[in-house]
Amino acid sequence: MPEFAIVRTVADLRAQVGAWKRSGQRVALVPTMGALHEGHLSLIALAKTRAERVVASVFVNPTQFGPNEDFDAYPRGEARDAELLAGAGCDLMFAPGVAEMYPQGFSTSISVTGVSEPLDGAARPGHFNGVATVVTKLLLQCGPDVAVFGEKDYQQLQVIKRLVRDLDIPVEIIGAPTSRLEDGLARSSRNAYLSETEREVAGRMNLALSEAVRRLKAGESVERVEATGRAALERAGFQRIDYFEVRNADDLSHPGPGTLSGPGRVLAAAVIGKTRLIDNMAVE
Amino acid sequence: MPEFAIVRTVADLRAQVGAWKRSGQRVALVPTMGALHEGHLSLIALAKTRAERVVASVFVNPTQFGPNEDFDAYPRGEARDAELLAGAGCDLMFAPGVAEMYPQGFSTSISVTGVSEPLDGAARPGHFNGVATVVTKLLLQCGPDVAVFGEKDYQQLQVIKRLVRDLDIPVEIIGAPTSRLEDGLARSSRNAYLSETEREVAGRMNLALSEAVRRLKAGESVERVEATGRAALERAGFQRIDYFEVRNADDLSHPGPGTLSGPGRVLAAAVIGKTRLIDNMAVE
Repeated sequence: MPEFAIVRTVADLRAQVGAWKRSGQRVALVPTMGALHEGHLSLIALAKTRAERVVASVFVNPTQFGPNEDFDAYPRGEARDAELLAGAGCDLMFAPGVAEMYPQGFSTSISVTGVSEPLDGAARPGHFNGVATVVTKLLLQCGPDVAVFGEKDYQQLQVIKRLVRDLDIPVEIIGAPTSRLEDGLARSSRNAYLSETEREVAGRMNLALSEAVRRLKAGESVERVEATGRAALERAGFQRIDYFEVRNADDLSHPGPGTLSGPGRVLAAAVIGKTRLIDNMAVE
Repeated sequence: MPEFAIVRTVADLRAQVGAWKRSGQRVALVPTMGALHEGHLSLIALAKTRAERVVASVFVNPTQFGPNEDFDAYPRGEARDAELLAGAGCDLMFAPGVAEMYPQGFSTSISVTGVSEPLDGAARPGHFNGVATVVTKLLLQCGPDVAVFGEKDYQQLQVIKRLVRDLDIPVEIIGAPTSRLEDGLARSSRNAYLSETEREVAGRMNLALSEAVRRLKAGESVERVEATGRAALERAGFQRIDYFEVRNADDLSHPGPGTLSGPGRVLAAAVIGKTRLIDNMAVE
């Protein structure tokens, strides 16, 4: 098994990445919040095809959780995460503490208008400012050639692509396809919250999304597809539906009520029990 | 005379800076809005003591001007700027157009709380968001080892130091002492707006500031020093005084009305005719 190390400070991270770069090796970063599952490991696998060295960050970022969200409950297990990363061929785990990321006096925030405003931006105020700021920090701390993010968080991926372009961060952002369980449920650390009954309900979200994709491709109107999808989630047993929407793929603007013309994305967020799940699919 | 070049795109800037860095040369960046004067050239001179190569950016950044400010009137003269930079030993001038800096769809903004809020932050809403965003872009476009900013814009310097620390931008920020004319007036591109009579009034601001420093060192209260300074600017003929304030040097928090204890800074902004001037001095 190759060497694997854990670092906790930006200085140590930079020392190792700097040494790799000076020896001509490309470096990929895979930012995570830990609680790793096969979805994350597929990001590591993709990263390994794009760089000689792969760094995974493990940091549950407090600033992207709202006051009534699951920051405290969010699953944590560093030893297991480290073992999974090492096994997947990751070279370095960057696991900073909150004080390393947000020292006393921290007062800078990055916001992205447009793409961050609908969907999770509306449902989770402040969430994408937290994401934009911490991802910018991670990218500038590590200085990777490429960084890999899952399409499971599709809006997050678009927000990150936008800010990287806008701020001229010298890195290539790569989206990785969503990893799914047997019934199609998107892999997510939050699936760990689900009871057996809730797990069954959760498995219906991806079906509603693929049905929506099928209908859009058949020429059904955006308006009808959204109504049908919403109704399907309700029937499935979700207790609150934050959104079930068809959007233009690149900037997440709304395509209007008629037939979808360009590349689209169907995105959903809904709550079952105490668990909020999101998923999305491409309409190509 | 050494070689001197002008580039207008981020790609060309990075190609040149990348070549220098690969050959082991340190690079300094001096961001300017053009209309160069001896103050800027003193920044170049300081930069040359800290790096083998010096890049100066010349960009009048629209997003840091308010709707009723002097963006259109701000003096521009690229040929003269280039000549001065070449003469001062600057290696590269980066003079991007607005579309290179803010292409279609641009939607990211950086804000810094605390240090950016009083003084010019209060007098010029949105100004420091514009500064923070463009400076971050320039730093990430160029990737210098050090960047030099004038202490003339002392609050701007503190905002930049804060955001560089907070976002982990890998660069050292250096403040350069304010360059002054014979009567002590701080050199500024906006001095070009002044009529002969206004020029005389302008020369009193630095006197009011050094008088304030003297009084603070003698133990006079912050409250009295501020009142005296304000009165001095009024008597001198300034038509509007935005502020004349004593602040703690590092975070620009207000030291309270009594005697100043730690390192301080006296800062003033006032309008004469159509020209708004700022200046500041250290209380050590």
